Amino acid sequence: MSDAPREIDALIEMMARLPGLGPRSARRAVLYLIQKRSVLMAPLAQAMADVARTVRECANCGNIGTSDLCAICSSEKRATGEICVVEDVADLWAMERAGAFRGRYHVLGGTLSALDAVGPEELRIPRLIVRIAEENVTEVILALNATVDGQTTAHYIAEALEGTGVRITSLAQGVPIGGELDYLDDGTIGAALKARKSF
Amino acid sequence: MSDAPREIDALIEMMARLPGLGPRSARRAVLYLIQKRSVLMAPLAQAMADVARTVRECANCGNIGTSDLCAICSSEKRATGEICVVEDVADLWAMERAGAFRGRYHVLGGTLSALDAVGPEELRIPRLIVRIAEENVTEVILALNATVDGQTTAHYIAEALEGTGVRITSLAQGVPIGGELDYLDDGTIGAALKARKSF
Ligand SMILES: [Zn+2]
Ligand SMILES: [Zn+2]
Repeated sequence: MSDAPREIDALIEMMARLPGLGPRSARRAVLYLIQKRSVLMAPLAQAMADVARTVRECANCGNIGTSDLCAICSSEKRATGEICVVEDVADLWAMERAGAFRGRYHVLGGTLSALDAVGPEELRIPRLIVRIAEENVTEVILALNATVDGQTTAHYIAEALEGTGVRITSLAQGVPIGGELDYLDDGTIGAALKARKSF
Repeated sequence: MSDAPREIDALIEMMARLPGLGPRSARRAVLYLIQKRSVLMAPLAQAMADVARTVRECANCGNIGTSDLCAICSSEKRATGEICVVEDVADLWAMERAGAFRGRYHVLGGTLSALDAVGPEELRIPRLIVRIAEENVTEVILALNATVDGQTTAHYIAEALEGTGVRITSLAQGVPIGGELDYLDDGTIGAALKARKSF
């Protein structure tokens, strides 16, 4: 509650649900938007509505885009025979910003978790196995976060791919213990990719 | 740049302009919204568009609302003869949350600043003087931030109101040096109001 008009309270309440914003910063953000209602608030509302209407998950890799196949899966240039497995789209963006990888991705959308009942199906692991044959994949790079759940998931995938003959590697040097890809600088990610080792 | 589709990049760029959000937290927020695109993103876009279309400043006090006079200026119950002068709407909301003041407000929209060429006209000070007669005001409470600019502005207003016969007070005990109202807890604000002293 801000003692603002009902419409503004509803907006603040929704903004406060975004990661990184609490009630106070949501109030500040909404007041800022109100001050800039023609130059920022109206265009932002429109951009948000557009994205909500057009965005979808890539049927092949789980990346987000505006058509059934994402830009990376649609590009023949990215058919290098390498697939980089990441936990989420933020990690894919971090890899792309680093500019060190030219193959395709497979976005798990999380990690295996007995507690949260997240199994291989939820993480598109069966689809990854299908892709290895379909896309003539020679190497799968496991670029999962250096957390317990990330590494458990990496081991599970490595086992699931045994017998496919594909080379399985993981990011190596430069990823700190407990580190999350999206927090690392581009150089660190590039170095870790170059120094990748067999898993 | 996030290497996301153009529409998503545009959205991230706008979100990153909100106070308290940088490029990284804007990316996180947008990915969260995309995950919740039907339950949160579409309704948030709608709420934002509604507020951008309907919100306006109260012609009397500078508070925000959805009609020419805000809810507080429209309420006869709030015509107590007391006007609380605040710097911005966030401070008005903080006062209302504290629940200790039942009169009306005057929202300056900033503080006097020679550097930024903010003069009395920009801060609705002439309008405040008009209101003192129109609304039978007996007391003006200067609830400005305990900053140099806030206190300079308070002194200017006190001088401008000399000769009107109105009692001029300011928040006292409990507002820490350099403190901003919107950061204080409700109890502190309430205590400061109760212990207000002649200015
Ligand atoms: Zn894809
Ligand atoms: Zn008003």
